Amino acid sequence: MERINVGVLGATGMVGQRYIKLLENHPWFKVTYVAASPRSAGKLYPEAVKNRWLIGADIPDDVKNLTVQDANEPKLALGKCRFVFSALEMGKDEIKALEAAYAAEGIPVVSNASANRWTEDVPMLIPEINYSHLDVIAEQKKHHGWDKGFVAVKPNCSLQTYMIPIFALIKAGYPVKRMTVTTLQAVSGAGYPGVSSFDMIDNIVPFIGGEEEKTEKECLKILGTVQNGKIENASEPVVSATCTRVPVIDGHTASVNLEFDLPEDKKPSIEQILKVWEEFTSLPQELKLPSAPEHPIVYREEENRPQPRRDRDTEKGMACVIGRLRKCSVFDVKFVALSHNTKRGAALGGILNAELLKAKGFFD
Amino acid sequence: MERINVGVLGATGMVGQRYIKLLENHPWFKVTYVAASPRSAGKLYPEAVKNRWLIGADIPDDVKNLTVQDANEPKLALGKCRFVFSALEMGKDEIKALEAAYAAEGIPVVSNASANRWTEDVPMLIPEINYSHLDVIAEQKKHHGWDKGFVAVKPNCSLQTYMIPIFALIKAGYPVKRMTVTTLQAVSGAGYPGVSSFDMIDNIVPFIGGEEEKTEKECLKILGTVQNGKIENASEPVVSATCTRVPVIDGHTASVNLEFDLPEDKKPSIEQILKVWEEFTSLPQELKLPSAPEHPIVYREEENRPQPRRDRDTEKGMACVIGRLRKCSVFDVKFVALSHNTKRGAALGGILNAELLKAKGFFD
Amino acid sequence: MERINVGVLGATGMVGQRYIKLLENHPWFKVTYVAASPRSAGKLYPEAVKNRWLIGADIPDDVKNLTVQDANEPKLALGKCRFVFSALEMGKDEIKALEAAYAAEGIPVVSNASANRWTEDVPMLIPEINYSHLDVIAEQKKHHGWDKGFVAVKPNCSLQTYMIPIFALIKAGYPVKRMTVTTLQAVSGAGYPGVSSFDMIDNIVPFIGGEEEKTEKECLKILGTVQNGKIENASEPVVSATCTRVPVIDGHTASVNLEFDLPEDKKPSIEQILKVWEEFTSLPQELKLPSAPEHPIVYREEENRPQPRRDRDTEKGMACVIGRLRKCSVFDVKFVALSHNTKRGAALGGILNAELLKAKGFFD
Amino acid sequence: MERINVGVLGATGMVGQRYIKLLENHPWFKVTYVAASPRSAGKLYPEAVKNRWLIGADIPDDVKNLTVQDANEPKLALGKCRFVFSALEMGKDEIKALEAAYAAEGIPVVSNASANRWTEDVPMLIPEINYSHLDVIAEQKKHHGWDKGFVAVKPNCSLQTYMIPIFALIKAGYPVKRMTVTTLQAVSGAGYPGVSSFDMIDNIVPFIGGEEEKTEKECLKILGTVQNGKIENASEPVVSATCTRVPVIDGHTASVNLEFDLPEDKKPSIEQILKVWEEFTSLPQELKLPSAPEHPIVYREEENRPQPRRDRDTEKGMACVIGRLRKCSVFDVKFVALSHNTKRGAALGGILNAELLKAKGFFD
Repeated sequence: MERINVGVLGATGMVGQRYIKLLENHPWFKVTYVAASPRSAGKLYPEAVKNRWLIGADIPDDVKNLTVQDANEPKLALGKCRFVFSALEMGKDEIKALEAAYAAEGIPVVSNASANRWTEDVPMLIPEINYSHLDVIAEQKKHHGWDKGFVAVKPNCSLQTYMIPIFALIKAGYPVKRMTVTTLQAVSGAGYPGVSSFDMIDNIVPFIGGEEEKTEKECLKILGTVQNGKIENASEPVVSATCTRVPVIDGHTASVNLEFDLPEDKKPSIEQILKVWEEFTSLPQELKLPSAPEHPIVYREEENRPQPRRDRDTEKGMACVIGRLRKCSVFDVKFVALSHNTKRGAALGGILNAELLKAKGFFD
Repeated sequence: MERINVGVLGATGMVGQRYIKLLENHPWFKVTYVAASPRSAGKLYPEAVKNRWLIGADIPDDVKNLTVQDANEPKLALGKCRFVFSALEMGKDEIKALEAAYAAEGIPVVSNASANRWTEDVPMLIPEINYSHLDVIAEQKKHHGWDKGFVAVKPNCSLQTYMIPIFALIKAGYPVKRMTVTTLQAVSGAGYPGVSSFDMIDNIVPFIGGEEEKTEKECLKILGTVQNGKIENASEPVVSATCTRVPVIDGHTASVNLEFDLPEDKKPSIEQILKVWEEFTSLPQELKLPSAPEHPIVYREEENRPQPRRDRDTEKGMACVIGRLRKCSVFDVKFVALSHNTKRGAALGGILNAELLKAKGFFD
Repeated sequence: MERINVGVLGATGMVGQRYIKLLENHPWFKVTYVAASPRSAGKLYPEAVKNRWLIGADIPDDVKNLTVQDANEPKLALGKCRFVFSALEMGKDEIKALEAAYAAEGIPVVSNASANRWTEDVPMLIPEINYSHLDVIAEQKKHHGWDKGFVAVKPNCSLQTYMIPIFALIKAGYPVKRMTVTTLQAVSGAGYPGVSSFDMIDNIVPFIGGEEEKTEKECLKILGTVQNGKIENASEPVVSATCTRVPVIDGHTASVNLEFDLPEDKKPSIEQILKVWEEFTSLPQELKLPSAPEHPIVYREEENRPQPRRDRDTEKGMACVIGRLRKCSVFDVKFVALSHNTKRGAALGGILNAELLKAKGFFD
Repeated sequence: MERINVGVLGATGMVGQRYIKLLENHPWFKVTYVAASPRSAGKLYPEAVKNRWLIGADIPDDVKNLTVQDANEPKLALGKCRFVFSALEMGKDEIKALEAAYAAEGIPVVSNASANRWTEDVPMLIPEINYSHLDVIAEQKKHHGWDKGFVAVKPNCSLQTYMIPIFALIKAGYPVKRMTVTTLQAVSGAGYPGVSSFDMIDNIVPFIGGEEEKTEKECLKILGTVQNGKIENASEPVVSATCTRVPVIDGHTASVNLEFDLPEDKKPSIEQILKVWEEFTSLPQELKLPSAPEHPIVYREEENRPQPRRDRDTEKGMACVIGRLRKCSVFDVKFVALSHNTKRGAALGGILNAELLKAKGFFD
C-alpha cells in the first residue's frame, strides 16, 4: 500500500515534533508538508527548529529536506497532503478559525488542540470508546457546506489514564456514578520550555491552568451518544479532579476513587473488574490499526505499579496501565492509572484517530 | 530557666539526627544522652554517624562530645536525662517492649515510632487537637504500676497535612463525614537511604507500604474522646487514602475532597471555612509553647500553592499550609494541604508534644 | 545606628527578589525604593510580582507597601535612597548606560550585572580579595565628573567557588600557573523561568551561554593591581573552563585541577594548603561586615563533600566550601569547591560589596 | 544460524537484568541459564526478582520459565550453556575465584565485574580498540591448564565516554600525553538500590568510591600491546579524573581537557580531529557484529550537546557521542563526551565482547 501524504500544522512546537517523530516509519502515512508560524516559514525544517529539536537525538530523514510553510495559509497545503495533523499553538479562536479554513479547502484536520473539543458536531475521539461519533462528521460537512474537509479532535491528555478502563466497566454493565481523581502529570504536557526547572526540583506544583475543568467535563462528551447527527453528552460519571504537576518527563498518573451507579448487590467485585479490563478490546483492535495497542488496558499485579518511567511505554505507549485496584472505604473501589501523555495522550492518540478515519474511508 | 536534660533513642538514624538538630538551641531542652544500636555504642557521636550526618552541614556542638550508649539498656539513661525522645528503628514489638522498659525505669518516652500508637492508654498527640488525651497517662501509669515513666506518641506524618484543618472545622460545628485523600509524599519520610534514586528520577511511586492504613485509621483515635481513662475512637470521618512517593526532599502534599455530615443548608460556605481556619488557635498557642506555630493553619491565596519547597518552612515548619479551597462536584469542597513531614510530621512534632507535657507538669 | 535607605533596580526579577529577601532584616540597609520595567511601574510591589514571588513563602513586610517605580528614570530615586543595588535584566549596553545615569545623578550603583565588569575604572569586587580596587573609584568619579555617584560591580557567580581559595594560596606565596575547571551549576543561576524542566529531569546540559568566557577572563581582573588609578589585570592563572548545568536549585560546584607556578621543591604540600585555607581571613572579617563569613574558606574532611544541598548554606551562604583536596597526576593538586550562587555568588555578595563600601566611607 | 545458549551469573541484580533484557531478541545468543545467590536458587526467575524487575515493564518471555540456579556451583551450568556472562555482585576475591572455577569447567566467562581486570593474561576489551588482546587468551588457557574455558572482561563504564575517541586520535598519529577529566555519572552505574534519592534531589555528590582510580589506570592496559602472550601497559596518556554522581538515570558525561604528545606544529587542528572521529571505524564494524554501532563516534554540532537523555541511545546506546570540541587555553583541546553506561558501558558492551569472541572462533 502506498503511504498517504500528510501535513503537520504547528510542526516546530513540541507536539508537532512528536507527530513528525512518531510518523517516521508509519506504514500508512508519510509527512510531506510542515507548516508553522510565519517566523519559521521559508526555512528548512532543521533550521527552523535549530537547537530546539526535543524528541530523541535526530530529526527524521524524511522531514530534513522539507521547507516550513506558513500555517496561516491553508491554500499552500493543497495538493501537498491529503489531510493535516493540527498541533497549532495559538489562541483558541484563531485555532478554531484556522482549522475550519483548512477543512473548507477540502483538507481534513485531525487535531490535538482543544479549540474544537466543544464544537457540537466535531467528534472528540478515543477510538476504543466512541468510534460511533464519526457519524457526526457527515452532519458537520453538511452544516458547513464542506466537501472533503472536516475536523476531528482528541480529548485532553489527563483523561487518557482512566477513560478506557471506566468505559470498559460501563460497557460491561457497571455504570459509574461519580469519581474523585487526583492526577500527577508529567512536564512534557506543558510543551517547551513549559514548566521551569526552578519549580520542578525538590517540588511539585498542585495546579495546572484549565486542566481540572477539561478533566471534569470532557468525559461526558466522550461517553455521549449520537442523536440526530449531534452528540448528546452523557450525564455521568460526575468527576471531581485535582491536577498536579510532578517532576516526570512523560507519563500522567491518576489516583482514582469511584462509585458505581448500582445497588450494592449488583456492584462488581474486584475480580469481576479485573476480568472486564483483561477482556476489553474494541474496534481499533479488530481493525488492527497500526497504532492500536493489542491490549488497551494492562493491569499490573505488583503492589507499587504503575510507575511512569517503567510503564509508560507499555504497548508502544498506547495502553492504559492500571494497578492497585482495591476496595475504597468511601466509595466502591480505587486504583492507580497511568498513560503516556505524549503518545496515547497526544500525538500517537491523534495518529490512531487518523488511522480510524482512514480505515473508515474518511480520506478516500 | 535551666534547660531539662533529654535523651534521644535511635540517635544515629535520620529521625534521631533531626531531633538532635532541632534541639540544638532549644530553650527548654538540652540533649545530654544519645543511644543507638549496640553497633554504635561506645563511639563518640560524630564517629557513630560518620559520613551519614544528613541534616545540614554540621553536628551540633553540644552533641559532638557525647558517647553513644546502647539503646537496649534503659538503666544506662538513669540520671542522665529527665525523659527520652524515641526515634528507634526496629521491629514494632521490640520498640513497644523497649519503650515500656524505659517508662518502667521512670523515664518518660515521647515517641516518634508507630509501635504504641494503638496502645489503648497511650495518647497519640497533635497538641492543637487532642491535648485532653493527656488525661489517659494517669491511667497508663496506674495500669503498669509506673511512677514517673509513661509513653506518649505522635501520629503518622501523612496526617499532619490535613488533621488540624479538619479538626478546626469539626470544632467550629462542621463535622466531616468522609474524605478521599491522595498524598504526594517526600522521600525524607522513608529515612536514609530510604527510596532509591533509581525510583525517583523521572518517576513517582504510587505506593508506600502501610501508609494508607495509618492514614485512614489514626485520625479516628486522634479525634476520639477520653472516657473512663481510655480513648474512645471517633466514628468519622471515614477516610480513603492513596499514598504516593514523589521526588521531593521534605514536605508532604495532600489532595483532599471532603463531605460534611450536615444537611445541605447547614454546610459552610468557602468563606466560612476560610474564616474558621484563619481564626483557629489552640492550647499550644495559648501556652506559647516554643515550637508552636503562631498560626497553625496558613491559607495561601495564590492559585498554585502550597508547594513543598516554597511553603514547607512556614511558621518554622509547623504550620499546615492550605490552598486551592474550592467547591467539589462530587463532595462538598476540595483543597490542597501541605506540611513539613520531618518538622511538624516527625521530630518537631515530637518536641511540641514534649513541650506540652512539660507545660502540663508531666516532667515535674 | 540608623539604617541607610537603599533601592533595588530590577526588583521584580529573581535576583532583585533575592536582594529584597536578604535585606529583610539587614542591620545597616533598609529597602525603601524598588524599580523595575515600565510595565511594573505604578503597581504595588506584591501586585507586580504576583504569583512570581520565588524566594521563600512571603514578601518581606517592609517592601509590601512600596510602589514599583520605573527603573529607566534615575531622577525618581533622588531622595528616596542613598544608593541602589542593580539587578537589572536588559541588554548590556542599556544596563551600562542606565547604571551610569544613576551614578550621574549622585546615586552610587552596586551592581550584580555583567555590563560594567570590564569597564576599566569600575572595580569588580570580591571583598576578601581585592578591596584595594576601591581606589579606582576616585578616578572613575573624576573621569566622569561625578560627585557622589559611582559604579561598583561583582564578578560572575561561577568564579566564587574557587577564587578565594586560589587567592589565599597566591597570597601565601604559592602562585598558580594554570587550572582546568569543570563546573556543575545550579538552575537558579539562570533566573526564572530560566532552564526548562524538560532539560533538567534525567538530564544535564553541558553548556551555559557566555559562562566559560567569563569564568576564564574575570579572575585576571580580580587579581589585578591598581596602577595610576586603573586596574592592571594579572597574567595568571590561565584558566580553561567547561560549564555545565545540573538539576540543583542553589549551589555551584567546581572540579578544579591546578598547577603552581613554582619549582617542584617549592610547591606546597597538601597539609600546607589546608593550613593556608584554614587560616585565611581578610578585611571583611577584620571589619566584621555583617554579611562577611567568619571563615571565608571551609574545608570538609568527608570524602563525599562538598555537596550543594548540604553545604551551600555554610556561613550564611557566604563560604567557599572545599573538599577532596588531593594530588593530581597531571598537575599538582585537585579539589572540589562549592559556593551558594545566589548568596555569595549574587545578591549577598553584592550586599557584602555595599557593606565594604559603607565601611570605607563611600556612602558618607 | 542457530542461537548459542548462554548463561547469566548474577542474573537477579541490576546488571544481570540488563543482560537478560538486551539479549531478549539477540540474533546469536539465547539465555538458557540463569544463576544467582543461593537465596534465589530454586525459584522461578520472575519470583526471584519479584517487585525488583528494573529494566522496562516486563521480564522477557524466554526467561520467565527459567529456574534460578546457585551461581556458586559452576558444574550446574555444564551442558546448559556454551558460555556465561558474569554480572556477579560479591567480593572481588570471590568473583575472581568463581570466574576461574567456571573457566576450569570449560565454560568461558565474559565478565562485567572488575575482579579480573588487572589479571595479567585476561584481556580487558573494548572491541573497537584492543581486539588484538584476544591473543593473550591462548596463554591464559595454557597457564591454567584450561581447555575451552577462559575469562575476558570489560573495563569500567566511566572510560567508555572517551576511550574510543582518544584511541582514534592515537591511531591517526596524534598521541595524547595527558588529560584532565571530570565525569558526571548516572545513578544506574551504582546498581539498585544504589544511590539514595535523598542524595540525588537538589544535589550532586562529588565522589564515587574507587571510580577515579579505575578511570585513571584502566586506559593504560586497554591501550597496551601484547608481547610474549602478555599485555604490556601503555605509558600514556596520564589521566587525572574527578568522578561525580548526578541525578541522571542512564548516561555518563565527561568533560575532557587534553594535551597531545606532539610538537606544536604537528598538533591536529579542530577540523583534523573531527575528520579522524568521523572516519573512525574498526573491526566490530568490519565484522558487522550485531551490537556494534555503525558509527562508534558521533559528533554533535549543536552547542549544548551531548545530553544524557537526548543522546544516550544514539546507535543503540553503543556510540560515544561527542560535542563542544574547542581549543583549550591550558592544554590543546577540550570536549564533552557521553556514553550509555548500562549499554556500551556495561551489559551491551559485554555482549559486544562476546560477539567478537564468537566471530573469532572462541566459542567453537
